[in-house]
Amino acid sequence: MYATRRSRLRDHVTAAGTAAALVTRPANVRYLAAAAPRGSALLLGKREDILFCAGPPEDRPYEGRPDDNLRVHVLAPNATGAGVGTGIGTGDAAVAAADLAVAQAADSLAVEEHHLTVTRHRAIASVAPGLRLGDLGGAVEQLRVVKDEEEISCLRIGAEIADQALGELLESILVGRTERHLALELERRLVDHGADGPAFPTSVATGPNSGRRGHRPTDRRVEEGDFLTVCLGATYRGYRCEIGRTFVIGTSPADWQIELYDLVFAAQRAGRESLAPGAAYRDVDRAARQVLDSAGYAEALPPLTGHGVGLEIDEDPQLAPAAMGKLDACVPVTVEPGVHLPGRGGVRIDDTLVVRPEADGGPELLTITTKELLAL
Amino acid sequence: MYATRRSRLRDHVTAAGTAAALVTRPANVRYLAAAAPRGSALLLGKREDILFCAGPPEDRPYEGRPDDNLRVHVLAPNATGAGVGTGIGTGDAAVAAADLAVAQAADSLAVEEHHLTVTRHRAIASVAPGLRLGDLGGAVEQLRVVKDEEEISCLRIGAEIADQALGELLESILVGRTERHLALELERRLVDHGADGPAFPTSVATGPNSGRRGHRPTDRRVEEGDFLTVCLGATYRGYRCEIGRTFVIGTSPADWQIELYDLVFAAQRAGRESLAPGAAYRDVDRAARQVLDSAGYAEALPPLTGHGVGLEIDEDPQLAPAAMGKLDACVPVTVEPGVHLPGRGGVRIDDTLVVRPEADGGPELLTITTKELLAL
Repeated sequence: MYATRRSRLRDHVTAAGTAAALVTRPANVRYLAAAAPRGSALLLGKREDILFCAGPPEDRPYEGRPDDNLRVHVLAPNATGAGVGTGIGTGDAAVAAADLAVAQAADSLAVEEHHLTVTRHRAIASVAPGLRLGDLGGAVEQLRVVKDEEEISCLRIGAEIADQALGELLESILVGRTERHLALELERRLVDHGADGPAFPTSVATGPNSGRRGHRPTDRRVEEGDFLTVCLGATYRGYRCEIGRTFVIGTSPADWQIELYDLVFAAQRAGRESLAPGAAYRDVDRAARQVLDSAGYAEALPPLTGHGVGLEIDEDPQLAPAAMGKLDACVPVTVEPGVHLPGRGGVRIDDTLVVRPEADGGPELLTITTKELLAL
Repeated sequence: MYATRRSRLRDHVTAAGTAAALVTRPANVRYLAAAAPRGSALLLGKREDILFCAGPPEDRPYEGRPDDNLRVHVLAPNATGAGVGTGIGTGDAAVAAADLAVAQAADSLAVEEHHLTVTRHRAIASVAPGLRLGDLGGAVEQLRVVKDEEEISCLRIGAEIADQALGELLESILVGRTERHLALELERRLVDHGADGPAFPTSVATGPNSGRRGHRPTDRRVEEGDFLTVCLGATYRGYRCEIGRTFVIGTSPADWQIELYDLVFAAQRAGRESLAPGAAYRDVDRAARQVLDSAGYAEALPPLTGHGVGLEIDEDPQLAPAAMGKLDACVPVTVEPGVHLPGRGGVRIDDTLVVRPEADGGPELLTITTKELLAL
């Protein structure tokens, strides 16, 4: 499987007229090599593919083990004392890889200019002055957009884990506990249920914080009458999913809470229902956005309605007003509209789904926790 | 204080003949601006210093609030849909800052080439074609090496928190629990005691894993007779400290365990005792290393004995064989020699200390948990 991915990338590189490619973005390295040990770089060389690592890959199932079909080259420890300021030393994997590309008689090398720093780029150029450096651009990111069933299965397990962790939290007493403690509790439960770890920093937002995208937990305590927005995800074998729900604390929600919830729910449903192979990214965004727009919340809206997930939590595609492109089958995305009213709080509902054709039953919902407005 | 730091950097930039500087590395932004909201960039302009943020800075005490003397410019949300592959959009703070540098009539701009990607560097060059781009290098990192008493006080509190979390763990039952659960438990306790969060991923290593630097916790369970190495740290107001200890599980350690422990302890003490203003980095490293070397463990040694800590957990200086430079007073560093014997395990002892002159009592030990070999 990894060899097939590398061969697809090699076809792309060859078609672009480049002899070799150097992949350094960690998620891209992992996608192509099965593992991305810290400080590693993958060379698709003229004669052979080699994974350069700063140290021996550790035996950690969560991190993946380098693909057996791939030669692994462990660099000598960087003992130059060059300091951390530059990040370049004799042990730099990208520099070592460029050196070997030259030894393999490559005359050109495509690098990930959106990931390499200017300093490392220059170090590569200086170690290999005869090498023509090009830009690999987002080629690996594009290969990663459509997932195979094994990848989707990892996302599905991750979503189950997140659903479990969230479900257990809802059964516990919430009033009086801080956002930070609830977030830590959720992260512990994710690992208890088999996650490698959280997919991103767990967000717990209460009262006036509720409904904010990416809110980082504070020491505010849950109070009666609050909206409570929770957004979490599990990483399972490197794959990251996301779920977000908003609850109300106490016996009965206020009218404004019910209205706002119903509205965001309608927007989220409209987004979900528009997921189909061939649907334009911007049309999915518009489907959700116009529900909120027409209710007068245009100002309060986030820049995007959803995004791809996989080895990173925020991948292509972006479901946003100006996004170009169309969905394919087997693309997992989030649909996560929300409204935040400064000083009052708000609602956010977030699912991870896989785009599937109508004939296969339409979009597959991975995060199945109820979206009814629960009063806790 | 932040204005003073910026003015020191400005002196450096002016002396290098550059009109303006652009700081993008998050820890550097935080050092100069008191806060580094996600996607922010700091411009030291010709007329004014401005912090560019991708969104409004959130009200999170742990993240810091931008210095009041600094203008904060919040960018419009990036709705270009350019995708995450490139990381560049209309909302890129560095690009916006370069644009403003030109508007302030700067003809040259020093950027952090060791942090900026090639793609962002190019985007800056294209938005400001008349601007001569230079390299700021590690100028801010160098300013950060010597800490003021407020910074040291944050490190001291962080160290107290880490000591507390570790002390509580030692009182609990350990046999049968997994490395991963112990690590999560420690991280929860750090936050319980007031940390912003862990300073780095907590490392718990048992049996054959013990003594490995940066070991990531696995599902291995603690067994009788194991060495147990724990390495953790707290972040407090952005400042990160580190403590590492090795214990033995069961009533009495084996002879080889006592011997290895005594040896690493002697090496660590030698390193600590060599900390003084004016001591060469490499001499501190050598002091610890030669104890292990002369006992025949040259092969098993890590590339460095310690490193600076502060807003990042791994800062300058590096205490390593080829490191150039000398310690100053008020530089906090770790001293963390260790030996790992493949298949058997090992010992690692790690303290955070602040270099102080002899007249002030010599090095100040921040992490005060006992270094006796405890049998748990």
